[in-house]
Amino acid sequence: MSLLVIGSVAFDAIETPFGKTDKIIGGAATYISLSSSYLTDDVNLVAVVGGDFPKQDIALLQQHGVDTEGLQIKENEKSFFWSGKYHNDMNSRDTLVTELNVLGDFDPIIPDNYQDCDYLMLGNLSPQVQLKVIERLEKRPKLVAMDTMNFWMDVAGDDLAKAIAKVDVLIINDEEARQLSSEYSLVKAARKIMAMGPKYLIIKKGEHGALLFYNDQVYFCPALPLEDVFDPTGAGDSFAGGFIGYLAATDNLHFENFKRAVIYGSAMASFCVEKFGTESLINLEDVKIEARVQQFIDLSQVEISLR
Amino acid sequence: MSLLVIGSVAFDAIETPFGKTDKIIGGAATYISLSSSYLTDDVNLVAVVGGDFPKQDIALLQQHGVDTEGLQIKENEKSFFWSGKYHNDMNSRDTLVTELNVLGDFDPIIPDNYQDCDYLMLGNLSPQVQLKVIERLEKRPKLVAMDTMNFWMDVAGDDLAKAIAKVDVLIINDEEARQLSSEYSLVKAARKIMAMGPKYLIIKKGEHGALLFYNDQVYFCPALPLEDVFDPTGAGDSFAGGFIGYLAATDNLHFENFKRAVIYGSAMASFCVEKFGTESLINLEDVKIEARVQQFIDLSQVEISLR
Repeated sequence: MSLLVIGSVAFDAIETPFGKTDKIIGGAATYISLSSSYLTDDVNLVAVVGGDFPKQDIALLQQHGVDTEGLQIKENEKSFFWSGKYHNDMNSRDTLVTELNVLGDFDPIIPDNYQDCDYLMLGNLSPQVQLKVIERLEKRPKLVAMDTMNFWMDVAGDDLAKAIAKVDVLIINDEEARQLSSEYSLVKAARKIMAMGPKYLIIKKGEHGALLFYNDQVYFCPALPLEDVFDPTGAGDSFAGGFIGYLAATDNLHFENFKRAVIYGSAMASFCVEKFGTESLINLEDVKIEARVQQFIDLSQVEISLR
Repeated sequence: MSLLVIGSVAFDAIETPFGKTDKIIGGAATYISLSSSYLTDDVNLVAVVGGDFPKQDIALLQQHGVDTEGLQIKENEKSFFWSGKYHNDMNSRDTLVTELNVLGDFDPIIPDNYQDCDYLMLGNLSPQVQLKVIERLEKRPKLVAMDTMNFWMDVAGDDLAKAIAKVDVLIINDEEARQLSSEYSLVKAARKIMAMGPKYLIIKKGEHGALLFYNDQVYFCPALPLEDVFDPTGAGDSFAGGFIGYLAATDNLHFENFKRAVIYGSAMASFCVEKFGTESLINLEDVKIEARVQQFIDLSQVEISLR
């Protein structure tokens, strides 16, 4: 099934305890597209870059089967740029630079070819842009999933609430869930957030795994215990790409399949953090992905019959 | 199979964001004994209290089938007393009072009746006392499990290393694993700690679940997402009690059974935190425990066949 991905395609400069990078390719939609491309064939991208964005990096996306007809190139402007530094525990980071550039007045134009998309992943962007994408699709996709961040809760709460009300799946982290709901307990937070609209809620807890909520059901997928985490940048977007990519590939919207999609999302995130930036998402192989998914199964599955 | 439990039986005074208690019954061995008593029949306690310890609380342990022949009562001394206050996130606490009292010179005397014990749980105590218990058993139990804490790493590192070298299972939390191994990555920490002696290592991560390591295998059991956590006191000991109690009851030392034991431990811990002190461990029923274990299974199990 066809997947439409909206989000930033950008430059990042990253510093972690293991090293630092110059400007490298980054952005939510980059990670989502690359990650999902390993699971499903028909990935279509709507995003915007400046004239400074390397043609070879656009070609890289295309080599992964990503349709870039919807990638606007504003030749006389600069690409979105983010720079951040991770603390020693890798669980928190300081933003050093945020230059919106082309993202400041991003108008998400959806090519006609993309209009029949079955699955939609709204990567982290201003909720106004996310809403525009939903409104501009002539046909409602089978499933609309959305990511956001606490910044939008602070500065665009009303629009964010409107966007959240229109999606099927919201994917956020534990800190964001707590801020959005004003509840510390994630069980209470999930109930409040699902009452805002989404039927499904995924709360990512980084190295502590991810929770999937649906009605009164909860599924928990652990994170893989890793020897080293080199760079968490893009892990959440890689998760989203693996999750929505698996759903688009299998086209099965039963809860049990959502659980599997969370495992694939977690597997893609586990690859992402093993190297800097998108490096580990560029030369992946299906057998490696399946072996990684098997590791998640071995990690959490148990044979048990109650006494 | 018979289970021998060693640890503190004591008074606690607890303050959490939900309320505070006067002196109530507490101590590692109290939680371990109560918790394990729901899973296995033959629970034997070695501990020490002062003359101030209420006879009704000893009777309470006996009503749960705990043999208290090994509970020394020093009529002219006072029981161990700990008082602590939890912070708002419940993940950290300040110790307000620690009065060792009878625990200061605790000599763990093992009644003859306990000598043939099959399973041994060394609750958190000074490693010297834990070592003495191992030395005083004429026959090596089938399985020796041990808890400890960072305090002993600071003040009794050499004896702690000797004790750790002699046990089959070490049960500690993530912070303690990091301190003991000087490794931040729990995978690396586990490898170093297992090289110190224990074949099995359990790293508890509180609300984030627990990891079981054995050779190159890892199993992860989530914590149950709860609406409210009232009081984390004794959660780790309740986990240990459920874990060792299940192993003693099933008498099966295959890795797959250790995984199940971790689920039962996690289930008992989830009950513990729902009320203050030992309250929720006093009137439990088997059907409630089995229903709770089923919740853990529903939370983490998934039907999946690789592509």
